[in-house]
Amino acid sequence: MLGKVGTYGFVAEPFHCDFSHRLMLGHLGNAMLNAADYHSNDRGYGMEYLNTVHRTWVLSRLAIEVEDMPKAYDRFTIETWVEGAMKYFTSRNFAVTAEDGRPLGYGRSIWAMIDTDTRQPVDILAVRDGLISEYIETDKPCPIEKSSRVKIEGKGVLARSVPTYYSDVDVNGHVNSVKYIEHALDLFGLDFYKSHRLKRFDVAYVAESHQGDLLKFYVQQAGERYVIRITKSSLSSIEEVEVVRLLMGFVKE
Amino acid sequence: MLGKVGTYGFVAEPFHCDFSHRLMLGHLGNAMLNAADYHSNDRGYGMEYLNTVHRTWVLSRLAIEVEDMPKAYDRFTIETWVEGAMKYFTSRNFAVTAEDGRPLGYGRSIWAMIDTDTRQPVDILAVRDGLISEYIETDKPCPIEKSSRVKIEGKGVLARSVPTYYSDVDVNGHVNSVKYIEHALDLFGLDFYKSHRLKRFDVAYVAESHQGDLLKFYVQQAGERYVIRITKSSLSSIEEVEVVRLLMGFVKE
Repeated sequence: MLGKVGTYGFVAEPFHCDFSHRLMLGHLGNAMLNAADYHSNDRGYGMEYLNTVHRTWVLSRLAIEVEDMPKAYDRFTIETWVEGAMKYFTSRNFAVTAEDGRPLGYGRSIWAMIDTDTRQPVDILAVRDGLISEYIETDKPCPIEKSSRVKIEGKGVLARSVPTYYSDVDVNGHVNSVKYIEHALDLFGLDFYKSHRLKRFDVAYVAESHQGDLLKFYVQQAGERYVIRITKSSLSSIEEVEVVRLLMGFVKE
Repeated sequence: MLGKVGTYGFVAEPFHCDFSHRLMLGHLGNAMLNAADYHSNDRGYGMEYLNTVHRTWVLSRLAIEVEDMPKAYDRFTIETWVEGAMKYFTSRNFAVTAEDGRPLGYGRSIWAMIDTDTRQPVDILAVRDGLISEYIETDKPCPIEKSSRVKIEGKGVLARSVPTYYSDVDVNGHVNSVKYIEHALDLFGLDFYKSHRLKRFDVAYVAESHQGDLLKFYVQQAGERYVIRITKSSLSSIEEVEVVRLLMGFVKE
């Protein structure tokens, strides 16, 4: 039986780095999702098995906190493990480490499981007689705060409307979880990033959106914290529906 | 001394695949650029060395022709080699192969070298006494046509205006070569890709653009071939300047 913690190696690809030669946060998020995918497939409760029984994992929340980001060409590892599994939710953590062993950051995520035919939540512990429970790791520390509900007072200021296209969409036909992050990062310009470091990133996925939907980004600022609410609307459904809530916490440098 | 041909392994990451579970062409282009980067660095004439002498490679043309694309989780390799080197241009080829040895596609590219202070072209053969010439490989076949000049008659139809943001920009502060490809792919919708396969892709990089520039995409269609001209303009320079020409050749499926 494989260990509870999986460790996966990555490289900060040069074309995935920003002007500061550091990996862009969306690509770190993508690497975490890959690590989660490999880890769960290797242990028999991943997408590969789930697709055969018309089930799939759905990312509900992702929080990332970084002290430093890998620079172009740097190798880094992501460890991932399942911290808890309940009937309708499981929590999975991540630790990002530089090649010299220095901790770079951590992640926390919450996942649900759905039936791909009905799109309704299903009992995670019913899959393979609760196989996932055999891999719960509660001793390994993940020294960042859990995601808290992202509270929003009022509507926020409409900062941008973003149409969605072919390359926004993933294998399931939905806008890719990482694309929302990239669009949110793009609300801030190069000049802002030259004086601010993104330290904490919380995202809650509320509903799915599809190619052709128009995403609207509403922003509320409180000091160096920005709360962003993303809604979708479309030609056939003009009413705005909330799809994602984000919290971005910067530190001035 | 390393061989003339370098071989690099890649995985079609699940979140880089489209609705058909196949790798999106922009990510294949990105993998080719990575292979070029690794190959030239390993042989002493890559960005790592060039940056120390205030020189850098600039991609001038890239042509990709594919018979099939890797599917999610598929491993594939990219071989790359320099086919020729002259004073101001070098040509580099690519072969993309599935894990079972099946050829998936090929690429051809043309690169110039510039002085990073003056942004002017410099003599490629003057770097390290013409080191690159020791690695010219002319026997290995690359069975796709060379890039031809992308001819445009008239102005084309303005299909879309695309603002550029933080995540469009690479370590040099310019819009990333691959981002133009992704924006061009996005001119076509999911329904189009369900009935058309992108077989041939030619891109010529004419000028650089920067965050904040507005890119305009002009399209001319001739059957299943689309010629796309991208211009930039900005608040401080409203006149449109051509930055990229693309040719996309589809086959109906």
